[in-house]
Amino acid sequence: MATAAIVGTSGYTGQETLDRVLAHPGLELYALGSDTLAGQSADALDPRLGRNGWRRIPRFITNDAALSCGADVVILCLSHEAAAAVTPPARGVVIDLSGAHRFQDPDIYESWYGFAHPACERLASWSYGLPEVSPPVGRLVANPGCYATAALLALGPIRDLIDAAVVVDAVSGMTGAGSSLKPASHAGAVLENVAPYDVGTHRHAPEIASLLGFPVAFVPHLLPVRRGLIATCHVRSRGADLRAALEEHYAGSHVVAVLAEGVVPELARVQHTDGAEIGVFDDRLTDGTIVICALDNLGKGAAGQAIQNVNLLFGYEETMGLRLSGVLV
Amino acid sequence: MATAAIVGTSGYTGQETLDRVLAHPGLELYALGSDTLAGQSADALDPRLGRNGWRRIPRFITNDAALSCGADVVILCLSHEAAAAVTPPARGVVIDLSGAHRFQDPDIYESWYGFAHPACERLASWSYGLPEVSPPVGRLVANPGCYATAALLALGPIRDLIDAAVVVDAVSGMTGAGSSLKPASHAGAVLENVAPYDVGTHRHAPEIASLLGFPVAFVPHLLPVRRGLIATCHVRSRGADLRAALEEHYAGSHVVAVLAEGVVPELARVQHTDGAEIGVFDDRLTDGTIVICALDNLGKGAAGQAIQNVNLLFGYEETMGLRLSGVLV
Amino acid sequence: MATAAIVGTSGYTGQETLDRVLAHPGLELYALGSDTLAGQSADALDPRLGRNGWRRIPRFITNDAALSCGADVVILCLSHEAAAAVTPPARGVVIDLSGAHRFQDPDIYESWYGFAHPACERLASWSYGLPEVSPPVGRLVANPGCYATAALLALGPIRDLIDAAVVVDAVSGMTGAGSSLKPASHAGAVLENVAPYDVGTHRHAPEIASLLGFPVAFVPHLLPVRRGLIATCHVRSRGADLRAALEEHYAGSHVVAVLAEGVVPELARVQHTDGAEIGVFDDRLTDGTIVICALDNLGKGAAGQAIQNVNLLFGYEETMGLRLSGVLV
Amino acid sequence: MATAAIVGTSGYTGQETLDRVLAHPGLELYALGSDTLAGQSADALDPRLGRNGWRRIPRFITNDAALSCGADVVILCLSHEAAAAVTPPARGVVIDLSGAHRFQDPDIYESWYGFAHPACERLASWSYGLPEVSPPVGRLVANPGCYATAALLALGPIRDLIDAAVVVDAVSGMTGAGSSLKPASHAGAVLENVAPYDVGTHRHAPEIASLLGFPVAFVPHLLPVRRGLIATCHVRSRGADLRAALEEHYAGSHVVAVLAEGVVPELARVQHTDGAEIGVFDDRLTDGTIVICALDNLGKGAAGQAIQNVNLLFGYEETMGLRLSGVLV
Repeated sequence: MATAAIVGTSGYTGQETLDRVLAHPGLELYALGSDTLAGQSADALDPRLGRNGWRRIPRFITNDAALSCGADVVILCLSHEAAAAVTPPARGVVIDLSGAHRFQDPDIYESWYGFAHPACERLASWSYGLPEVSPPVGRLVANPGCYATAALLALGPIRDLIDAAVVVDAVSGMTGAGSSLKPASHAGAVLENVAPYDVGTHRHAPEIASLLGFPVAFVPHLLPVRRGLIATCHVRSRGADLRAALEEHYAGSHVVAVLAEGVVPELARVQHTDGAEIGVFDDRLTDGTIVICALDNLGKGAAGQAIQNVNLLFGYEETMGLRLSGVLV
Repeated sequence: MATAAIVGTSGYTGQETLDRVLAHPGLELYALGSDTLAGQSADALDPRLGRNGWRRIPRFITNDAALSCGADVVILCLSHEAAAAVTPPARGVVIDLSGAHRFQDPDIYESWYGFAHPACERLASWSYGLPEVSPPVGRLVANPGCYATAALLALGPIRDLIDAAVVVDAVSGMTGAGSSLKPASHAGAVLENVAPYDVGTHRHAPEIASLLGFPVAFVPHLLPVRRGLIATCHVRSRGADLRAALEEHYAGSHVVAVLAEGVVPELARVQHTDGAEIGVFDDRLTDGTIVICALDNLGKGAAGQAIQNVNLLFGYEETMGLRLSGVLV
Repeated sequence: MATAAIVGTSGYTGQETLDRVLAHPGLELYALGSDTLAGQSADALDPRLGRNGWRRIPRFITNDAALSCGADVVILCLSHEAAAAVTPPARGVVIDLSGAHRFQDPDIYESWYGFAHPACERLASWSYGLPEVSPPVGRLVANPGCYATAALLALGPIRDLIDAAVVVDAVSGMTGAGSSLKPASHAGAVLENVAPYDVGTHRHAPEIASLLGFPVAFVPHLLPVRRGLIATCHVRSRGADLRAALEEHYAGSHVVAVLAEGVVPELARVQHTDGAEIGVFDDRLTDGTIVICALDNLGKGAAGQAIQNVNLLFGYEETMGLRLSGVLV
Repeated sequence: MATAAIVGTSGYTGQETLDRVLAHPGLELYALGSDTLAGQSADALDPRLGRNGWRRIPRFITNDAALSCGADVVILCLSHEAAAAVTPPARGVVIDLSGAHRFQDPDIYESWYGFAHPACERLASWSYGLPEVSPPVGRLVANPGCYATAALLALGPIRDLIDAAVVVDAVSGMTGAGSSLKPASHAGAVLENVAPYDVGTHRHAPEIASLLGFPVAFVPHLLPVRRGLIATCHVRSRGADLRAALEEHYAGSHVVAVLAEGVVPELARVQHTDGAEIGVFDDRLTDGTIVICALDNLGKGAAGQAIQNVNLLFGYEETMGLRLSGVLV
């Protein structure tokens, strides 16, 4: 059993990570950090955590205390700026769910994230942990963004087979926008509404481009659903059979499934799971190919992938503790 | 390991039951019945069932074949009339998720269900299996209706402490209405809409009344959500402390939780689980008490409760294989 | 043409009132008050207001300036406390959409609204303006609450025909909770969720009781829809034909419709309208009657009713400028 | 006053058309055709149509009778195949909301619509009526498809300024899929779900391409909302200022608005209206431009545009009877 600490537990990714850690047979929840809940018992976050039958859950402590508690793995569920300011503990695995360590180039933080990175010199110590495309290396792992995960699961394995003119349009459930209060997250702005946002300027665009090696045009849209995202990617093959390449790449995966011809990815089949579905389609009018990936932004797009990275680094079975669906309606 | 057969797998309750059986450490899926899918492999129902990493799942056979396959437990996920016409196998446990065996009095089928029960003489062989209020007895078990489960979890333990003038208003996700195609289930009639239905005439009213021993006024409403229901029950105490009575009744339960004072039940906390939440509130203007129960209509309201009944009958731990939540966002 | 000023335009009820005033052939928009938008042009609130083809819309001024601009009618779309603190202009009609002037008894503000009313002596000058049940009298009019409107349209005309033991359960779209940012209004707490709130303690309970003359047990629930509410009311008749009484009461109304037997009220048919639908049903198990009213919380439940009150006070046709539906899908 | 007949009133586009005709000051509803409702009064379709205060509405007659009733304008709200089989009346305007007359090339019906067009020789008599891009000519008008309308409003005015490599991804409310019962329209398949459909094979792709003069890659997605669609179009300019071109093109329009820089189109602002919103954005990573159009699939995407076409052909003011929004929340 490895011990685990969560830093920043009260947000959406923190809660989901807590859920995965509690269900993981190889992890013992060692510390629960939250500056707003420090001192309180776990059910202050959610009454479900106080139920009979749960393993004992520790009280909340401060994020600093959780960070330095000596756990075997520390999972950071903080804002980009807060995570960038964290000094990683001297030993143990650290998984950062924010964007603070996804880029080697500090300029991207100034130009795309709007802050000067306070620890540029450490950026090279972090690896980008997208298991199927860019497996984690070393003890400091930047967990990919949700949109980037979907686009890279679709495009990463075929990046050498396609032209460098890729369009990615995506739709996401609103938990992708976080739990902080802002007008765009007010239910009155979300219900029975859909809107694009950060059009042509979203931070996941350089993240996708960085792994692919060429730029992409990326437009995300916010959906009136709680969870899940779909990335619809338009590519042109350089003569290769893209479906075959993707099927081969994911043939052994228990996490990512390439759907049979004609079957479309759906939010409903990936919500509440840590897996992903990929569909491949020819466009009838152009010579383009459409690769579509669906996943749960809080599962494979965040907490599930964090646990998958932990599994890989600790030598556990890759899917240990993950939710890989049944046939839930 | 007990062997299990599902009869009528393709509907909502059938799929949920399949999901529970696949995840249950004490059940082996033995036969998968569906007249429409007979002969096809499991992924004809849902591509998730063909994924790597799943246990091998048998091909679909006819419902008759599944019924008579000799499984230790047969779970009926059929329409009321189809279930009423079933001759139970000579041995083994049978759990009926329809309403076909919930009443001893055959007249109720004529007057509330609209058909003459074809096997009145067998009705007395079935017990009503609501574990917390009316535990299953014998090998033939009628699984309660979803609304009835919620109302009876709220009211059953206090039925002797309240006046016989109870109002129950309920709201339910639309999977409660089943997967068959009808105008009221068309998404255009459900999205951004809410409507009461079967006002004062819903079949779960006599089911609730039958267990309580007195009539209730019951009005269900259909919600534009996929899963979950809330029953809001208005009662008048005969001097007893209803909260204390409910807390005592559910003190040892890992399935039903009485929430702390001031905490309201929420759909989001019970969706995709097999548990239930109960809140108890004083009304400020009248001398009434409001008892509110939330559960997932397909979980504790259907497939989860079926598995809980199976666990009780087979001597398994009551919660084996059930989904009793984490802190999923 | 009467001139109209809106005080507190930026919230939901303010926007809806603006919409109605712009469409009203007998009202000229004279002043648009908003402390947060003062000095800006109308399209700062919504780009639709800057479109070609609209009548010219004045720039925003402060709420104080709008209040004292000398308009023939001033419509207050403020919080309860802010509205209570307003000194009405010396002449002209004032319609208050908040709860600040709905009660003659100042104690209700302390015990139900949580503040001492700063102008108790003026409460008697205000009338409660629910046109079908309690038509506005005088130039100061308190516009009813949304839930209270629905419950009183259902119960007001039959209050003398029923026992004083009434239960009202209601569900409302989330715009009823206002546009201010709070955790319960975050889309992540609303989507695919339903929860009761203010159980047994909601402020509309004494408002309903005050008009009926006897207490009611009232429980509201928040829906994942943008607009509309349904109040399901359980009553016992003292021998009268409640359907006949309601049909007679509303026979001449162009705003409130009593539906034919067997037809249920639906949110979808009243959303975006200023009308209401009422259904009447016998309960099959008890001797109760169920009266259900559906309306749009921002229409008949707020801005539409305000305009209806204005029409009555100015001698305009009652439905002038109201949205009384077509067959919008 | 021109007389109007609706053929196929009971579907979504038929109902919306009826709504617009009833509200139109220059149209008199002359005949209401529906084979399923023939002989019944209008409120058989919707109880709102039987309300006090409405103009008298004729009883339903058969579609054939409505077609040949001699109305000045006949609006066809039929399926593609049924509309293709219609013999237009000898005089009067005919607006066809289906796809049956949008193409001059009969082969498209065989290859994209799956049926041989029964009246190829008449196809040349019909004009494609997209007022802002391809105004209606003559008395037989094919009303554009909803996605095609959005894509062509965005791209039509700049088709000569962009490269012939365009990607259009779109999301639509589920009323776009029609009111007939099918598994994909069941609320259980739509709620809290999103899925692409007809990927690379949707019939609106050749419709868009036909007007632009070059192919497009088009992927529609079905949303869990009732109304509205957004088309997100990726183009590359040949050096022109696309925003300036679009602003100039729509400068005089009361129907289509080009939003200010930085403002994104939203479903909520166009739902229940007959207008459209266009946003123009530079992509930061590539040299592409993103043009996004939002409209209501049943408004500007169907019935509203039909009425706009009628207005143009009858010399009425272009926006007569249209819903061009207020600030409805």
